[in-house]
Amino acid sequence: MKTGAGRFFEDYRLGETIAHAVPRTVSGGERALYHALYPARHALSSSDEFARACGLPAAPIDDLAAFHLVFGKTVPDISLNAVANLGYAEGRWHLPVWPGDTLRSESTVIGLKENSNGTSGVVYVRTRGLNQRDELVLDYVRWVMVRKSRLDAPAPEPVLPTLAQTVAPDTLPIPAGLDFSRYDFALAGEPHRWGDYAVGEQIDHVDGVTIEEAEHMLATRLWQNTAKVHFDATNRADGKRLIYGGHVISLARALSFNGLANAQMIVALNAGAHANPCFAGDTVRAWSEVLDKAETPAPGVGAIRLRLVAVRHGAEPFALRTEDGKYRPDVLLDLDYWALMPR
Amino acid sequence: MKTGAGRFFEDYRLGETIAHAVPRTVSGGERALYHALYPARHALSSSDEFARACGLPAAPIDDLAAFHLVFGKTVPDISLNAVANLGYAEGRWHLPVWPGDTLRSESTVIGLKENSNGTSGVVYVRTRGLNQRDELVLDYVRWVMVRKSRLDAPAPEPVLPTLAQTVAPDTLPIPAGLDFSRYDFALAGEPHRWGDYAVGEQIDHVDGVTIEEAEHMLATRLWQNTAKVHFDATNRADGKRLIYGGHVISLARALSFNGLANAQMIVALNAGAHANPCFAGDTVRAWSEVLDKAETPAPGVGAIRLRLVAVRHGAEPFALRTEDGKYRPDVLLDLDYWALMPR
Amino acid sequence: MKTGAGRFFEDYRLGETIAHAVPRTVSGGERALYHALYPARHALSSSDEFARACGLPAAPIDDLAAFHLVFGKTVPDISLNAVANLGYAEGRWHLPVWPGDTLRSESTVIGLKENSNGTSGVVYVRTRGLNQRDELVLDYVRWVMVRKSRLDAPAPEPVLPTLAQTVAPDTLPIPAGLDFSRYDFALAGEPHRWGDYAVGEQIDHVDGVTIEEAEHMLATRLWQNTAKVHFDATNRADGKRLIYGGHVISLARALSFNGLANAQMIVALNAGAHANPCFAGDTVRAWSEVLDKAETPAPGVGAIRLRLVAVRHGAEPFALRTEDGKYRPDVLLDLDYWALMPR
Repeated sequence: MKTGAGRFFEDYRLGETIAHAVPRTVSGGERALYHALYPARHALSSSDEFARACGLPAAPIDDLAAFHLVFGKTVPDISLNAVANLGYAEGRWHLPVWPGDTLRSESTVIGLKENSNGTSGVVYVRTRGLNQRDELVLDYVRWVMVRKSRLDAPAPEPVLPTLAQTVAPDTLPIPAGLDFSRYDFALAGEPHRWGDYAVGEQIDHVDGVTIEEAEHMLATRLWQNTAKVHFDATNRADGKRLIYGGHVISLARALSFNGLANAQMIVALNAGAHANPCFAGDTVRAWSEVLDKAETPAPGVGAIRLRLVAVRHGAEPFALRTEDGKYRPDVLLDLDYWALMPR
Repeated sequence: MKTGAGRFFEDYRLGETIAHAVPRTVSGGERALYHALYPARHALSSSDEFARACGLPAAPIDDLAAFHLVFGKTVPDISLNAVANLGYAEGRWHLPVWPGDTLRSESTVIGLKENSNGTSGVVYVRTRGLNQRDELVLDYVRWVMVRKSRLDAPAPEPVLPTLAQTVAPDTLPIPAGLDFSRYDFALAGEPHRWGDYAVGEQIDHVDGVTIEEAEHMLATRLWQNTAKVHFDATNRADGKRLIYGGHVISLARALSFNGLANAQMIVALNAGAHANPCFAGDTVRAWSEVLDKAETPAPGVGAIRLRLVAVRHGAEPFALRTEDGKYRPDVLLDLDYWALMPR
Repeated sequence: MKTGAGRFFEDYRLGETIAHAVPRTVSGGERALYHALYPARHALSSSDEFARACGLPAAPIDDLAAFHLVFGKTVPDISLNAVANLGYAEGRWHLPVWPGDTLRSESTVIGLKENSNGTSGVVYVRTRGLNQRDELVLDYVRWVMVRKSRLDAPAPEPVLPTLAQTVAPDTLPIPAGLDFSRYDFALAGEPHRWGDYAVGEQIDHVDGVTIEEAEHMLATRLWQNTAKVHFDATNRADGKRLIYGGHVISLARALSFNGLANAQMIVALNAGAHANPCFAGDTVRAWSEVLDKAETPAPGVGAIRLRLVAVRHGAEPFALRTEDGKYRPDVLLDLDYWALMPR
């Protein structure tokens, strides 16, 4: 058999590192497509001039585009036979990605636990994105529930990694040279600075975007994510394709511009849950909540910890969970991240 | 409130200049996307070699892509609460836009007139697109009808700007170095030169393109145009999204290649009306009429003034208005522009 | 009449060479769009670093993107009035295409044969794609059935070109510098080398992709292919648009990554048939058969001749023709090509 069926739960070994296939060189093409696929307007990723005025050599590609590029490569090895994408932790954007960079990914298995039903298990991996100089661009922990293929394969000794609840603010990566002391708020689109946001504050981002099948498939292919459920209408009786969770992340983040235009760079991912599946025809809206704030050593740069929630049109404002603690059925995404903001 | 609700009629002051947000650096990505979104074939924007043979340093991005980039930035400040986009005048493309350029926009309020019903008014702005050297790339006048939010706000003294009926041909901007004396008609696609067109001549561009929701949303997002009506299916009972008028302009202009392949550069916009709304599923066709011709000082370069009309499939050929002077219901666009053509 | 209606059968002359219009400069934008439109993952076209490790100066654009760019330009002159695209032969990719290259096309009429019904005829052309240095990038023979416009035009003397059944392996173009002796199979995605494939071996590529109207229209426009049937829903009672056959070729080739990840470069096209029309909503799957193998003088580089078959979902595995020798109704494409592979 020449074709790959993907790995099953029993194929993972604690401590092994998997080099993922198909490195990718990024250009202005990926940047333009990102702006066509999402209503992204954060100035630092849109304008070389704006980025230079903030101390960077040029506009990096959107932080989430870098995430998708790194993540997409892991799909054939990690989540092709996944039942569910369970969580994220300890994500850090160590270096911006510039047009011309080439990215590759590798993942180390840091935890394994077979489910009591014996038909699946949870795999924890730490994924690293590396550039052409072998510099660490991005790393994050993800855990997924993966089916077993040989049900009689012995269960591995359960190992659960110890994961930080959040990325500590004094460990946030700050891009070299970043300086927001001469930040142009008019060009950026909003006057609100770090000091204007209060912990606990909630922001309804107002706008909504209705998703078409062609759009999420173009996006998901661009990141070379090969999971069949996103592309093959024959997988479901209703002919719909399950939308890649990362598409909803990027959509919600772009919508959050309206109210968080100055939350310029995502530098850490504390946690994330794809609360419910998203399908073409859904109109996605978003709201945010300020979870924490921190100072940074970079001139004029503050850090803000945000909960970003994507919901379907019609969802009750700022409502996340039902009384029994589960996500409400119209909640699509609950993401917890740190961003950098002018003080 | 951190989110912006946009400006209302009473928020504009005569003479004020609004710096629009989110500068954008253009690359080959925007050029490629323009060619994927529209059937654009004008050789000067398609081939660096062709552009060099015409005296330019490289192929500029399509003139209308430059227009959309400049226009898109104005939407959050000018037309988020607009009832209607009423007209354009005095548009001039002063400089080509090249990959690597960064564009920003600003608008000056040059006219204000409250409507007699007291619930809305007309705002006239002159918008300027500037590159990273603060050079004027494009300017045009646009007027829109904008809702009032506070109905008791006093009406401003009415001021209507004096606008030229057309851009005078001796004021048309000609790109530095442009020389059509060794123009390659075979590579450009048609043998017809400036002298072959007669004032009053009408051209049916024959081809038609059916629009999909995904296409116009990709395009409108690419220009960072944030108007909700283009993206949010919950705005209308039928779930359709109103297509950005500029999408129809680009579609019609691209269709006009068949018969006007040598009308290479748009250098002035005399007038324009989005006669009727356009929706996904519409099949768009186009026809042109030669309104005027003029010589230019550039070698081998003539100017041609064209009416470009976009219609829905089934429209009567070359029919624009009904007996009472209104646009026929199947007319989508009536645009009046100057282009440069080999003599 | 300024608009072109395309050529009819009686307009072709044996031996004439037609210079096709609209040269095109390629950038990272076309590469990014190719990866968004097709699930393309072959590493040599995805990563500059991978390409350099294989002796090339950078990653070329996908070989099929080069094919589409050259082919698209021929449509207005060759196939605008075609009844059917009958076949391909003697295709060779002489040089990779890099971002920054400008492509143009020309075709020489090498055969003509009027059909016995007197209403159409078959035109054979050899098409050449040339870069900005007038170097031959790609050439291939294509024959199409074209309608007559003037039914009383005399039939030309029938001339049928002598065409090679396959491109002889010792004439396959090998890109200068190509060296697979340090090929990284992990980064490429599969361990199977040239020696692991046996003539006669069949591979089911497993995955499927459902096509949307927006996707194939974006792709076909990107290649500046102007055939109306791909864009105008009013051409058919059911409102569907016929999908450009090249879209199916690229889709099938990208799907063939799963099992043929190391068939890196397409260097020759032996034959090809668009067996049945493809429409939006179709879910496309693919299988391959190894037809031949050959050595090459380049270090570590073998050549493999493959049949690539695209089918609609539900097709019987590896079934190509019915008992009467015709293509089965669920077969979309039957392509015969040579690719280069690490030994």
